[in-house]
Parts: sequence; C-alpha cells; structure tokens
Amino acid sequence: MKNYIKHDPWKIIEEGFDMKNHTASESLFSLGNGRFGQRANFEEKYSGKSLPGNYVAGVYYPDKTRVGWWKNGYPEYFAKVLNAPNWIGINVNIEGEELDLAKCKVSDFERILDMKEGYLHRKFTAELPSGKKVKVDAKRLLSMTDDETAVIKYQVEALNFSGKISFTPYIDGDVKNEDANYDEKFWDEVGKEVSGNEGYITVTTKKTDFHVCTGMKIKLFLDAKELEIKPQALVKDKYIQTRIDTEIQKGQTLCLVKYAAITSSMNYEKHEVLGACHKALVRACAKSFETMLKEQAHWWQAKWEHGDIIVNGDVAAQQGIRFNIFQLNQTYTGEDERLNIGPKGFTGEKYGGSTYWDTEAYCLPFYLATAEENVSRNLLKYRHKQLDKAIENAQKLGFKNGAALYPMVTMNGEECHNEWEITFEEIHRNGAIAFAIYDYVRYTGDKAYLAEFGLEVLIAISRFWSQRVSWSEAKKQYVMLGVTGPNEYENNVNNNWYTSKIAIWTLKYAQEALEYVKQTEPTRYTEILEKTNFNFKSENEKWSDIIENMYFAYNEELKVFMQQDGFMDKEQILAKDLPMAERPINQNWSWDRILRSVFIKQADVLQGIYLFEDEFDMDTIHRNFDFYEPRTVHESSLSPCVHSIIASKIGDNKRAYQFYLRTARLDLDDYNNEVHEGCHITSMAGTWMSFVKGFGGMRIKNDKPYFAPYIPEEWESYSFKVNFRQVILQIFVSKNEISIHNLSEKSIQLTVFDKDYNLNAKSKISV
Amino acid sequence: MKNYIKHDPWKIIEEGFDMKNHTASESLFSLGNGRFGQRANFEEKYSGKSLPGNYVAGVYYPDKTRVGWWKNGYPEYFAKVLNAPNWIGINVNIEGEELDLAKCKVSDFERILDMKEGYLHRKFTAELPSGKKVKVDAKRLLSMTDDETAVIKYQVEALNFSGKISFTPYIDGDVKNEDANYDEKFWDEVGKEVSGNEGYITVTTKKTDFHVCTGMKIKLFLDAKELEIKPQALVKDKYIQTRIDTEIQKGQTLCLVKYAAITSSMNYEKHEVLGACHKALVRACAKSFETMLKEQAHWWQAKWEHGDIIVNGDVAAQQGIRFNIFQLNQTYTGEDERLNIGPKGFTGEKYGGSTYWDTEAYCLPFYLATAEENVSRNLLKYRHKQLDKAIENAQKLGFKNGAALYPMVTMNGEECHNEWEITFEEIHRNGAIAFAIYDYVRYTGDKAYLAEFGLEVLIAISRFWSQRVSWSEAKKQYVMLGVTGPNEYENNVNNNWYTSKIAIWTLKYAQEALEYVKQTEPTRYTEILEKTNFNFKSENEKWSDIIENMYFAYNEELKVFMQQDGFMDKEQILAKDLPMAERPINQNWSWDRILRSVFIKQADVLQGIYLFEDEFDMDTIHRNFDFYEPRTVHESSLSPCVHSIIASKIGDNKRAYQFYLRTARLDLDDYNNEVHEGCHITSMAGTWMSFVKGFGGMRIKNDKPYFAPYIPEEWESYSFKVNFRQVILQIFVSKNEISIHNLSEKSIQLTVFDKDYNLNAKSKISV
Repeated sequence: MKNYIKHDPWKIIEEGFDMKNHTASESLFSLGNGRFGQRANFEEKYSGKSLPGNYVAGVYYPDKTRVGWWKNGYPEYFAKVLNAPNWIGINVNIEGEELDLAKCKVSDFERILDMKEGYLHRKFTAELPSGKKVKVDAKRLLSMTDDETAVIKYQVEALNFSGKISFTPYIDGDVKNEDANYDEKFWDEVGKEVSGNEGYITVTTKKTDFHVCTGMKIKLFLDAKELEIKPQALVKDKYIQTRIDTEIQKGQTLCLVKYAAITSSMNYEKHEVLGACHKALVRACAKSFETMLKEQAHWWQAKWEHGDIIVNGDVAAQQGIRFNIFQLNQTYTGEDERLNIGPKGFTGEKYGGSTYWDTEAYCLPFYLATAEENVSRNLLKYRHKQLDKAIENAQKLGFKNGAALYPMVTMNGEECHNEWEITFEEIHRNGAIAFAIYDYVRYTGDKAYLAEFGLEVLIAISRFWSQRVSWSEAKKQYVMLGVTGPNEYENNVNNNWYTSKIAIWTLKYAQEALEYVKQTEPTRYTEILEKTNFNFKSENEKWSDIIENMYFAYNEELKVFMQQDGFMDKEQILAKDLPMAERPINQNWSWDRILRSVFIKQADVLQGIYLFEDEFDMDTIHRNFDFYEPRTVHESSLSPCVHSIIASKIGDNKRAYQFYLRTARLDLDDYNNEVHEGCHITSMAGTWMSFVKGFGGMRIKNDKPYFAPYIPEEWESYSFKVNFRQVILQIFVSKNEISIHNLSEKSIQLTVFDKDYNLNAKSKISV
Repeated sequence: MKNYIKHDPWKIIEEGFDMKNHTASESLFSLGNGRFGQRANFEEKYSGKSLPGNYVAGVYYPDKTRVGWWKNGYPEYFAKVLNAPNWIGINVNIEGEELDLAKCKVSDFERILDMKEGYLHRKFTAELPSGKKVKVDAKRLLSMTDDETAVIKYQVEALNFSGKISFTPYIDGDVKNEDANYDEKFWDEVGKEVSGNEGYITVTTKKTDFHVCTGMKIKLFLDAKELEIKPQALVKDKYIQTRIDTEIQKGQTLCLVKYAAITSSMNYEKHEVLGACHKALVRACAKSFETMLKEQAHWWQAKWEHGDIIVNGDVAAQQGIRFNIFQLNQTYTGEDERLNIGPKGFTGEKYGGSTYWDTEAYCLPFYLATAEENVSRNLLKYRHKQLDKAIENAQKLGFKNGAALYPMVTMNGEECHNEWEITFEEIHRNGAIAFAIYDYVRYTGDKAYLAEFGLEVLIAISRFWSQRVSWSEAKKQYVMLGVTGPNEYENNVNNNWYTSKIAIWTLKYAQEALEYVKQTEPTRYTEILEKTNFNFKSENEKWSDIIENMYFAYNEELKVFMQQDGFMDKEQILAKDLPMAERPINQNWSWDRILRSVFIKQADVLQGIYLFEDEFDMDTIHRNFDFYEPRTVHESSLSPCVHSIIASKIGDNKRAYQFYLRTARLDLDDYNNEVHEGCHITSMAGTWMSFVKGFGGMRIKNDKPYFAPYIPEEWESYSFKVNFRQVILQIFVSKNEISIHNLSEKSIQLTVFDKDYNLNAKSKISV
C-alpha cells in the first residue's frame, strides 16, 4: 500500500520526486485516447527504473506460447498489444550534460493528471551535476477529438546559467516488451525519413505485419517567440532523431512543441499509412498546442457532463471514483467495434492488452449508462464478429454442430491462454457473453439487436452448454463436470453453481430470443435457422430437458447454494482467522493448499445472485452472503464490487461502504503493491457499478430505470448521472434528500423505491 | 506400431537399413553399464536424422524451469542427466569421400544387440557416391566389469578399390540436449590434451560443476597386424581428434580399436578426474578388445544365471522378456546408492533421467528377485539420504513438524516437476516410498533396516499424511481433498481411493515399525524419537484416530471402491466404445475432455488392490476388476502389467496374457510410436512383474515365497529364476508340469498353491 498521491477532486497529484514510486506513477498517470495510449514515461532521458510503454489499440504480436508441459488444445501463441515506438522522447543536453532526473538534484517536482481537461502536466527544477539549474514544465495530451494526433509542450528555463542547450526529439521503434516470452523484439522497420523539423518512421510487427507509422514535427520558441531552427537528422535502425542546438540565457525559457501522429494499417492500406500520418501531423500543427488543449478540455467537459459522479464530504472518495471513470474513458471510446478493453488498458503490458470476460461482466454496464448506445453495441458486435472463431475453438475441444466457446483471452477471436484449468474449464465466460446481450437489450430496449446479431451468438453458446453438460445416471440429473468458476481458487470442480446457473439461464434466454425473433422477424428467423442449421425440434427440446433437469448443488441444512460438489467437506475456517502474514494467500501458499482450502478468490455464488437477483428472496440472498462473504479473501480486483452491491441490497450499508473503499482507490493507494504493472482498468468499471448499483440501487425493471439510493454515513451528499435511452438523469442523494433530475428534453418513466414516477423533461423529483 | 525387429531368443536384430527407423533403433540398441550409457548412434558420420545421446549416471544440469504461468512452490529448475561428450565418433574418409550412411547405397546392413554377451554389433556394405565399396563390421561394449571403460572395434574392408583412407577418432564435448528449455548448451571446457594415439578432454556442467573426463586411445591393425601410426591431432573448443592417414589395398581389412574411459567428479576429486581416466584407459588397453568382450560375456552369463526367464514355444515372447531384463540390468546395477533409475534409463533424454515413483512401485520387485539384496537396499537408502530435502519440500507447501513429501521427479532430492496437479497433488508417491520399505523387508527379512533407516522415513511420511487429511464436519470423517492419483486422467479430485488407501496403510505400518523398533532396539528407538522430536502420545493417537475414521468412497449398489468422489456422475461409457481414430485419447482429446470422461489412464483402484491384495476377498477383486478394466485405456506404460497380474489372480488367464503382450514387446514393436524418444525402462520391470507375479503367481506369504503358477495357452513351457534370501529358485511350468528347483546350497521353505514344502539344497519338487 502507498499513499503518496495527494487528494484532490479533479487531479491526480504527485508532489516531490521519489524514484521508488516512479514505475507506479508511470501507470497511474497514463494517458490514452482509445486509439493509442501510453504509460507516463518521461520525455527526457531517464536512467532510473522505468517500464516504457506505448500501445496502439488492436496492433498485436502473437508471442509463441511458453509452457512447461503441453496439453492438446493449447494455443500456439499469446497475443500481445506490444510496446510500440516511443514518440515522446526529447533528450535535453545542457553544455554537454544530459538532463536525467536519476542523476540530478530534483526539487519542486510535481506530476499532475488533469482529469477535467485530459492532459498530463509535469514540473520540476533540476540541478545538474555541474550545478546548472533548469526549471522544466511539460504538458502532453493524446487528442480525443483527433485520435491520430498528440502533442507535447516542453519548456525549459535556465535558472542560473547561460549556455548551449540542445534538444533531441526522437522516435524510437527499437523497443521491446518486458514480458516477451523468448526475449525477442517484435518490430521490423519498413521505412523512415527525417528532414528539417519533421520525421516519420514506419515499422511492422513480425508475423502479424501490422504497419504503424509514427511522425513528429518540432517547433521551438524562445520566450514565446518562434525560432527558426536547423535541426540535424540522425537515423539508426528503427530510430530517427533531429537535433536542435541552440543557446539559452539565464532567465530565458525555451519551449519545444513536439506534435506527433500515429497511424496504422488497422485503418489504412499499408501504402497509405505514411501519407495518413503526414496528414494527421499537418492537422495537429495547424491547430497549435493551445487549440488542441482547448479541444481536449471541451471533449472531456461533455464526457463528464454525461458520466460524472460527485461525492461531497470526502475528497479521497471523489478523486477515486473520478480516476476510475477517467481511465475507463481513456481506454475505450467505443468508436471501433474491432477494439475492446484489456484488463490493464494502456497502462502496462500485463494480460497482453487482450480481451477477457471482464468486458461483458464488468465494463458493459458502465458504458451502457455513461456512453452512447453505440458504444455498448460495438462491444457486443466485437464478439459477434468472432463467432466463427469461437465455433472453431469449441471444435478443437471436441464440440460439434456449431457450438461456440468464446476464448478466455483473445485478440482476434482465437484463444490465447494456456493453463488447462482456465483455457478449457473456465467456461463461464461463455455465459457472460450471452448475459451481455440480455443486459444490453434490457438497458437500451434495442430488441432488434437479437435478430440482427444476438440470436446467432445465443444459439451457438447454448449449443455449447447443451453438449457440455452430461447426464448423471447416479443423480438422474444433468451435471456439469470439470469446470473452474470465477472463483479461480477452485479448479476442475464438478457442478460449480455459478457456471451451471448461467448455462441454464442462457438456454432459457436463447429460447426466449428464438421466440421473439420468430414473432417479430419471421424472415430473418428462417434465415438464422438455415444459416445455423438449427433443428428447432430436437435442439429446443433438448434445451428444455436440460433446463428442467439440471442439478444444482445445495445444502439443505444451511439452505445455501453450494459453490460446487463437496464444498462442505472442506475445513470450514474463515478469512478473518487467517494470519495477516499469510495474506494474500496467493503470494504465500502453494497452489494445492489454496485449492483445498475453503477460501474464495471471488465468490461466484454471489456473482450469480448479483446477476439473477430477481430469482431470489431477500432471506436467500442474506443467507448466501453471510455464508460466502466470510470465506472470501477478495484476491481478485473484480471481487469487492459485487460484494458491495449485494451488501447494499441487503441493507448492510456499513460493509457495502467498506467493500467500496477497497475497490475505489485500489490503484491510487496501490493496495496490492502491483500498480507498477499497470492499473486495474476493468475492475474500475466494477467500482462504478458498486456506486451506481450499490449506493444508487439502480436496476432496470419493467423497461424502466429503478433506483433505491442511500448514502454512506461518511459522506454529506453524492450525485451521479446516467444515460438511459437518450435521457440523462442526475441522481442526487444527501442525508435528507433524494432527488432525480431529468436533464434531457424527453420525459421518462422511472421507479424509486418501488414507486413509479413520470419525470418530465428538465424536471426533478424529490423523494 | 512397427515390426522390423527380427525375432530371436537372445538377440535384437535389425536387418536392412531404413533411415526412418533409425532413431527408434538408436533407442532399442542402447548400451549401458549402470555408470554410463548411450543411444546406438553410429560411430562414423551420419547426416540423417539422429538423436545423439551419451549419459553419465548422476551427472546432471539444472535447466531453468520453463512454465507459462508460475505457481507458488514451483521448482526453479528441472534436473537433466544431460547429453555428455560423444566418445564413439570415428569419421572415415576414403580418398576424400566421407563415409556417411545417409549418402551411400547400403546393403547387408545388420544391427545386433547381443543380450547374452552384452555388446552391440553392426555390419554393412556401403557403396560411396564414387562407387567405392567398403564392408564395415563394428562392435562395441560398455564394460560391466570395469565400469569406467568401453571399447569399439571398427573394421573396414576395401571391397573394390585400393587407395587412401583416413580414420578420425574424436571426442566431442560440444554437444547439446534436444530438450534444453532455452536452447542453451550445458557444458564448459576444463581442459584437453591429445598426443599420438591418445587424447583426453575434461568438461564441466554449468551451474552444477560436475567434471567429466573422457579419454580415448587408438590402435590400428591391418589384416590383424598392428600398425605403427602417426596420428595428427586437432583440437577445437570442447573437441579433440586424432587423424590417422593410411592406405588400404583391395581385399584388405583395416581394424581400428578405440578404447575409451569416462571418469567424473561423482567418484573423484576434480583434480583427480583426468588421472583416473588415464588409469582406466591403461587398464582397458592392457586387456585388448577380445579380453574385454570375454569379461563382458562372463558378467552377463552370471546375470542370466540368476535372473533369466525362458519361454518355449514363442520366440517373440522370449525375446521381449529378455530385452526387458537386459535393459534393466544395463540401467541400474545397484552398486551406487546415489544413483537411481530414470524412466528412459540411458536410452533418451525424456524425463531427464530423473527418479520417479516408478522406482519403488515397479522396479524394486525386479531387483529384489534378481539381484543381490544390497541392490534393493541401495534403492531404499537413496530415499533415506534425501529425507531432509523431502522435509524441506513439504515445508514449502505449508507442512510442519518434520513432515516429508518426496518429490515427483528428482535428481538430488529436490522437486523438479512443474505442473501443479502433479507436483503438489500427485502425492501418492509418498506412499510408494513407504511401501517399498515394507516390500524390501518382507522379501529380504532384513528387519534391521527399519531401525537403521526405514523408521525415520516412515515417521516423516506419516506426518505428512496426518497433516494432509482434513476433518470433514459434513462426513464426520477424515477426507483427503485435492489430489491426483496414479490415474493422471483425473486431476485435483477428492478422496482418490488409492491415495487414501496407501496413506492409511502407511500410518498403520509406521505404527508397527515403531513398535518393532521399540521392542528390538530400544536405544535406537529412543534415539530416533529424539532426533525426529516425535511425540509418541499425541502423534500416534492422531494416527490411530485417522486410521479409524478415514473416509473411502464406495458404491453400495455396485459394491466397488470408488476411484474418487463423484465418479458415478460421469457418463458411464466404455473404452471399447471409443472410436479407434480417437485413440490414444491423450493425442486426440483436449485435456478437459479427458478429465471429465470416465476413461482411466491406469486404474489406481486396481493398483491399490494389487498392493494390498490380502485385504480383499476374490469376489471383491473380481467386481472391481470388472468395473475398472473396461474403463481403462492403458495410456500409461505402467498400466497393463498390474491388470495382467490381477487377471492372473482371478483366473482370467486369457486377458492376463493379452495385457502381458501389451507390455512385453511395447518397445520392440513400438506400440505407441514413441520409441525414438527412448525405451520405457521402468515399465520393463512391470513386464517382469506381470510374468513372475502374474503367470508365476509369486508372492511372499508368512516370510516364505509362494507360487501359484499357470501357463498361457500359447506357450509350451516357461521357466524363471528368482533369488530369495540367497537361494536361487528355478520355477519351471509346462502344460503338464510345475516344478521348482532349488539351485543353491541352502534349503528353503516355500508354498505352492497353498501347500507348504521344504525344498532341500540342489533339489527339486514337482507339483
């Protein structure tokens, strides 16, 4: 745990330079614009510990699988959004001395992530070994409005000397991934050019042949007056630079503006990538830094207008929730249906930038409520586009007849993960993808999506479930053997309650969807049946049989759902009895000990209750929460948010708030001492859920938004906004008041605490 | 499956040269003398596909673990008996042309492994691209009587030409392992020298710093007359050679004898290794090839005298069983308690030459019955020496108070394997090590072993079991959660019957051993209790409590032991219903499909019944066999032998013979198309067991050997010899007669078919 981040409602602030926090700060202060992103590496040379990170969304390298013992069905590669050319680099040399914060006396260091306006700001005074002092002020942004461009404004003031100074802006494509399986570099050079103050370099990923062109154009100002510069170019393998030698007088400020553009063959033909990069750079330069910053602030203003959460009376909580919202919006803008959300976003290499079930289970609700409908729709279409690959993947594992198993980890639809207990057995992900369709449809009302894309996916997933269960002659019921649930601290168990639950739910929903499409779009219905070669009679009947005869582990005595068969054979000790020195158990216990213990990484029975809440009465929810919560060690960042929501649901407000705290500032306070690897982007959406669904009690019921808000004792008031079918609602909650304000031009029907309201445009109700 | 090996009672014969069989033959024709061994690579250059293999027992390299996803408790390295300097090399150059069978027309090729006398013989005629023809005759042996020495006699006859010929004998230490995790080479050079017809090279293993010196000395004969030679030396990094240029006339035969010696720092101080190698070479040269061959034949004669099995009426069966006995004796001679038996012996790289539970469960009975008592005792002491490491290993996994978990795979006592479901959960190996003590004591009568070494091991293993079980409040019994049984087609299951069975058996036997040592050696008893800090009252009581209250899965309806909890929830289909195209399932099914299927790699319930046979009545054995056999796919080479023994036991002679066939010629006929990787050395001991314990019905009952022999229909007669407490018994069985001959100078009491006999020295009974 760290606590060096200064509390502020709109800014993430680091004051003073401590090298040991640098890699964590590189993660926290990351920038992204959905199209590309980067860790907060320094512009100037830094010889201290750093994890360089620049990433271009969708551009990946298939790194050959590394495994000790091969199992049939393992993938050949792990797709990695690879570390891309570094375009921020600006080396600064003062009278022969290199500016390098690892070798200077640094004072007045401040690093600020301005979340309101969307830029990174860094200030410091550095005393070089010779005693020369400079004051540096660097701002940079990755444009949200023109997502091929970015800009850096880098100012150096000579505090106590006059003399020669040279700036060497460069683009370095000779970079590597720290997590490369075989220590290889992933890029080859295609071409490069530098002339005057401008340069381009095009590189291509090995094997996948994605072309990425990165361009830069430099302007230099002395005390705000632009200088004519005659830079000297130098090129090396996968590297270009352009050096500017100039002079500075004591008290003067030199300001270098580095415009950058990044284009790739994701969006252009390979031969056009360079031209497009050139055009993007022209656009950026035409605007100037100040205009780009203004556009950026404007974009974020609109974003916050729709999706902000305000907490009064607790700056730390305010900062925490805004940081989560900010990072989510930097990671995924929803404009490109080929893209998705990696668990670390653009903030680190871990998890390879690939797509996990996190997207459907945790991120979708956030984007549904805070972004345009199309953003969520694109997240769904991403999986629809990969349906054929999911069918292939299931075939590899012996499934037939168009059954689909979506991968645990993927870039292009192919499975990338290689632990058998996860790759082959953590199949609940398939259910999350089905549930996301339902979640999207109930939120947006876009039932047409079913006929267009959803039903095909639901059929293929249902086929998987119907083949994955088997008949137990002993139980005279269907069982699901050999699975790993979301609680990954149990592997290869039988009848994981959550997995069976979501499987059966999928079958039912697929039947409903079939019926709906049949009724509303009979032609399309026939088309889908033909395309999928769906035998309505036999397949549908089989599904009904499974729905009716599925086995679920249940403990009659305790009246709780059993996480899996045999769970009560474990030693029933509680997380509170674990010595602190042994926690987290995943860093202190061998894997077998974790597996045979009762301890739960994230409680999947509660995950199921969260998803299918309406099926259970309050007592049941209570009993299951009281049974599973004390056994849960929350060693998944995705765990506390669901517990928080359920605690809110059952009125255990105190614990709801405790769980919330555990997730809201997880990264800012670096609870698990792992932020240097990157931020927990997808669990940030879980934090948002525990706020809006937990404290706000938001649900969708009967096609209408439903709220049951309360306020944690520690706060004065809070408010959040959600976007429901083109209506922006602002929910305000204080100790004395709950009000809901319709900020839109449309009226809306909604429910608060089981009472229905009709809320006119621009009007407000208080409860 | 292949069938190119010619049937012969005493020889393994390959006739004709087929390049595609070469790597398989390299395995089959392997030589070893317990101290070092090698694959049957060619002496002369061979540019075709080959797996070079020379191994020095006990000399290993700790290859850094390669794993996709690290788990706490994984080992840092996998120990590999590494590919050692190649000392067989003799390049042959004829008038500028290299002799290379991959580039010649080869005729009259014959490769013979003479099992009676213990040498490899190869003959061929090769026509070089120029049309020159030579006839080559090469014999080599690895001396059993002086296990630091070896010799090759390599004869070349010029069939159709006269001209220049040069021989280049060499030693090449610049070799690598095909299975190196990171494609590194494992040897560094220490020193080398060549002068005249003699040369030495000393290399050292990286990290472990084992020094190995390999020496050679050359003699050349023309038509049996020794020539004076003036060889030219050449050295390179980790390589020495000495070239002899000479002339040959049509019809003449040149004969090169290459004496070799191998010494290592296993047996000498590092600075003595070279001197020892020199001395060994002097010894070998003093003898000449013919004397060495004579000594070798003599050694094998004695070995066969004690341990041969004779089958009349079936040459294939005769060859199969002799091959197994021959390879076992080549692999392990029992003279060095630091050594053990790798699953592939000296015949390939696979499994790294490390020690598995195979030693105790399969090999020990073979050495007990065919070798001196000391050989088995050394196998047991190997584990006793590693007890401290086994305790450390258990500590890593959270066990306390001197509990020991022996590693799954080891070289020096440290765990080397890195699959969690095996490393941490396939803990039944601990039971096999305890059982081996019992097996040794009951066979040899050496009860003193318990006080000397056995009891300490039994206490430590029992402590492990007593901590590894846990109390199930639900069952009100002790359970054993999260284990992998010998049937590795189930992972992380609860209450694997076999593992629980051997655990409880261990506790009981440890109690007996405690009592025995207390009664017979009270001083030593006190010493052991103090050394192990054993609290007799509390620990012994706990063990009794577990023994009395252990849960075993059992099916009341079928009256069979259940392999594990939930086994009857599986789809109950049978191996016979599996399509041939899907077998072996481990090459055709994904791992999850194998795991949730009913199919069994090797039936561990039957393994338990085999070990603890006396506890079960015949009906119980029958029922369990009838239940598990049809579900077993025998995809472990260790599987069929146990099924064969049980089939013999229950009188299902036909199936016993079928299972026997499956194991006896497993390698010679290459059933699984994998012999190119090496021979299944440890399962060869299983084959021996299925003969002696199956057909011969041999057991130890009441301190006496017991036999219940029968003969498979297909045979005329068979006989085998066993060594029981210094008495050699020859059991002869034909259709009409069963006789037992005491070949020793001591009388013996024994039981045949439940009738007791007293058999005087040198006398015989017929039954």
